[in-house]
Amino acid sequence: MSITREASLLGATGQILGWDQETMMPEGGLELRSRQLAQLARMTHELATDPRVGEWLAACEADASLMSDPFSVAAVNVRETRRAYDRATKIPASLVEELAKTTSISQHEWAEARKLSDFARFRPHLEKIVRLLRERAACFGWDKAKGEAWDALADEYEPGCTAAEVESVFKPLRTRLAGLVSDLLTKGKAPRAEFNDYAVPVEAQERFSRFVLEKIGFDFRRGRLDRSTHPFCGGSHCNDVRMTSRYSERCLNDGLGSSMHEAGHGMYEQGLRFEHVGTPMGESVSLGIHESQSRMWENQVGRSRAFWTWAMKELPRFVGDDAQRFSLDDFYGAANVVEPGFIRVDADEATYNLHIMIRFEIERAIIRGELDVAGIPSVWNRMYKEYLGLDVPDDRRGCLQDIHWSMGSMGYFPTYTLGNLYAAQFFEAARKEMPDLLDQFARGEFGGLKRWLNGKIHEEGKRYLPRDLCRRVTGQELSPEPLMRHLEGKLRPLYGL
Amino acid sequence: MSITREASLLGATGQILGWDQETMMPEGGLELRSRQLAQLARMTHELATDPRVGEWLAACEADASLMSDPFSVAAVNVRETRRAYDRATKIPASLVEELAKTTSISQHEWAEARKLSDFARFRPHLEKIVRLLRERAACFGWDKAKGEAWDALADEYEPGCTAAEVESVFKPLRTRLAGLVSDLLTKGKAPRAEFNDYAVPVEAQERFSRFVLEKIGFDFRRGRLDRSTHPFCGGSHCNDVRMTSRYSERCLNDGLGSSMHEAGHGMYEQGLRFEHVGTPMGESVSLGIHESQSRMWENQVGRSRAFWTWAMKELPRFVGDDAQRFSLDDFYGAANVVEPGFIRVDADEATYNLHIMIRFEIERAIIRGELDVAGIPSVWNRMYKEYLGLDVPDDRRGCLQDIHWSMGSMGYFPTYTLGNLYAAQFFEAARKEMPDLLDQFARGEFGGLKRWLNGKIHEEGKRYLPRDLCRRVTGQELSPEPLMRHLEGKLRPLYGL
Repeated sequence: MSITREASLLGATGQILGWDQETMMPEGGLELRSRQLAQLARMTHELATDPRVGEWLAACEADASLMSDPFSVAAVNVRETRRAYDRATKIPASLVEELAKTTSISQHEWAEARKLSDFARFRPHLEKIVRLLRERAACFGWDKAKGEAWDALADEYEPGCTAAEVESVFKPLRTRLAGLVSDLLTKGKAPRAEFNDYAVPVEAQERFSRFVLEKIGFDFRRGRLDRSTHPFCGGSHCNDVRMTSRYSERCLNDGLGSSMHEAGHGMYEQGLRFEHVGTPMGESVSLGIHESQSRMWENQVGRSRAFWTWAMKELPRFVGDDAQRFSLDDFYGAANVVEPGFIRVDADEATYNLHIMIRFEIERAIIRGELDVAGIPSVWNRMYKEYLGLDVPDDRRGCLQDIHWSMGSMGYFPTYTLGNLYAAQFFEAARKEMPDLLDQFARGEFGGLKRWLNGKIHEEGKRYLPRDLCRRVTGQELSPEPLMRHLEGKLRPLYGL
Repeated sequence: MSITREASLLGATGQILGWDQETMMPEGGLELRSRQLAQLARMTHELATDPRVGEWLAACEADASLMSDPFSVAAVNVRETRRAYDRATKIPASLVEELAKTTSISQHEWAEARKLSDFARFRPHLEKIVRLLRERAACFGWDKAKGEAWDALADEYEPGCTAAEVESVFKPLRTRLAGLVSDLLTKGKAPRAEFNDYAVPVEAQERFSRFVLEKIGFDFRRGRLDRSTHPFCGGSHCNDVRMTSRYSERCLNDGLGSSMHEAGHGMYEQGLRFEHVGTPMGESVSLGIHESQSRMWENQVGRSRAFWTWAMKELPRFVGDDAQRFSLDDFYGAANVVEPGFIRVDADEATYNLHIMIRFEIERAIIRGELDVAGIPSVWNRMYKEYLGLDVPDDRRGCLQDIHWSMGSMGYFPTYTLGNLYAAQFFEAARKEMPDLLDQFARGEFGGLKRWLNGKIHEEGKRYLPRDLCRRVTGQELSPEPLMRHLEGKLRPLYGL
């Protein structure tokens, strides 16, 4: 369908402009850039909602032979184009454009507000975003009997996802996690984490990140790694993937984790097939599945003893021989220390999901109208006390830490925890098929895992829905068990329990 | 006119993608990027040729009160929108798109061919470009009695420019320059040029360039400086100007000259008024006038004794105290040594225009059909022998050195020499109004010249045509005399004549 390919191509241009705004654009460019992004969003929307797309879809859907195999390229493209078309035709172009313009400006305002820890500066922008998101949810609609407006927003990121369903997964997960974290902190003995205070210049960290990413399989001839305030993975298509990372002078693991995380996203994008560019078969399944890839490389790989067995031998030539004083236990321990903290992106694997739960509950209450934007800081701080036992010192380290809401993304955060669940379940399946996977990592060989993911997940594009893909790849329904097995199995022994 | 503003905004997006392709894009991105640029070119063309623009123009032109002052904002915007509309409606969208796609690929092929000094690799791409350019010229048309197809191409860059007119300026200029160069080389004593062999790391050069550019008035909050194979100045508008430079490990003056040159373009762009963005009043007059700005900062400023009086005191903290061994005469001499060479962008001020004349004669013969693309290398080499007394050793240092033809730009090169003529004439006028201008430079003060250019040229946008602007700013018709006075007055004494 040439019109939807045109829309996709124009969207790819918007992606490059978005990347440029975060990494390269001089500050003076903001005003015109907002106009450019708004124009592209409007034009893309116009193409994606062209009545000829609806006519083409109807004709395809009426063609029984075309649709006979629901997982054929044609049938998948029709099914997913239909989903996107139905969503797109429900929003007026003016709302699309206003959201694009507003979020472009408010991302900048958020960055300034965060710098100054000044929520009041960000508040009017977020209020406007919330108003526009409610309008957007109303356009999409939701199951009025069992659902709520938040569902209409979340469906954009994770097809079929509802607040009720998320709540039903988060509740037991919170109980199990609370038990584990409590045991570790009260009964366990924390591993040595001295390496997390090892001061390394940012340039050396970046060079090490590039080396590791190249080694695990990110193709720099088809992508870039730059820096930005909030790391992300963008770009226009599989052969031009733009990732960013962020490095802390104080802690190498922060930046390395961030780089490996984004490379997981980046390798998913690079693993999509160029022949399908511009069609759903050339696109990723959902944010939850996307996140499973980033989490797996960050956590199942990057925090494993096997990874550090290899990495500890490579590190000194990037950061100096002084790094030789750390033992394998030091590296492995430092990567896995559990410590409740304020910052989500710095969180350990065990407490991470508690951060997500707080964001989910707040954004759900906001969209429900039970909480005003002005009330976010106090609710945020109260929940951090309750869930993580922490007194948030300022909004910079509190409710201003994430870029997502400034981008108009509500209903997005839970996909991070879905990603953690999928990652653990996929990784168990991979290890079952390749029992020597960890030995490969210890030798610096990551191609086995990467090729497995390419074949099982990346190259399939949107052929399967998230839950179906999970069942096909792992033979099981999505379950919290693999994640809890992963965390319990690693952390209890590490903490001497 | 909102449609033409939309077209301009989309064009600005294409500019950012073009910059990205040359500076940031990974190599894998080329194929899709070509499609993106072709799409934007097509969409921009569709907007710019919308019949409603023609209707709006006709209505404006019929409104006598609107057009009564030909230099009012409204009248200028109508006049120049008419010029652009008439040009745009004469080319079919398919040709616009094919040119964009072809030149995107051939720029990449040119870069590879140049690396390998392999003209045969570039040849089929250039042949296709020439074929498309001839089609384009046929669409525009030209004065069949007195003109030729080349004129139709040149008019795009310099309104009203014809091959016959260029020839009539170039002929006497060549005679005068040949006399000067011959005198310098045979009767003069070359200044010490040891500084041109001073090896300086590229990073230090880049830092020095940034310092100088900030000092002469380029605003880095509204622009960037990066590196690319062929330096250029692009960006989307006055508040987001993207320049590139190129540094040679061997010779600081190469990179500094290139940076100051691009900053001249960049300050012109930054000097346009934001309130006029998207309309002709917010655009530069012509390439010749644009080039006058880059040449003035590169040559009249950057090669002056006054500039080096200041710069020699600043240089050591960027490149090391070793640079203190050079005297003012060393810096001034090195910046002004005359030596025929193969590379246009490395040429001194005196021989530079001879390089342009060769390109002009070749592209004119190609468009006339008197020369085949295959014949370029031999004609090129013969002319370098005749004009500059040089035996070109390979095509890398010969006919593959410039990016222009690979971008589909024929009729462009002469604007460089027009720029030299305008630069000299404008600078004479500025010195007449500010007799202490050189003393200001010697103190590191460049704001006087910059503000003069802002007020006289930049802020006026397209209000005046090139020749009219020249008459208003200098009180004189365009003439080769100021350039020859500038060259003779500087070089004869420097060479002891």
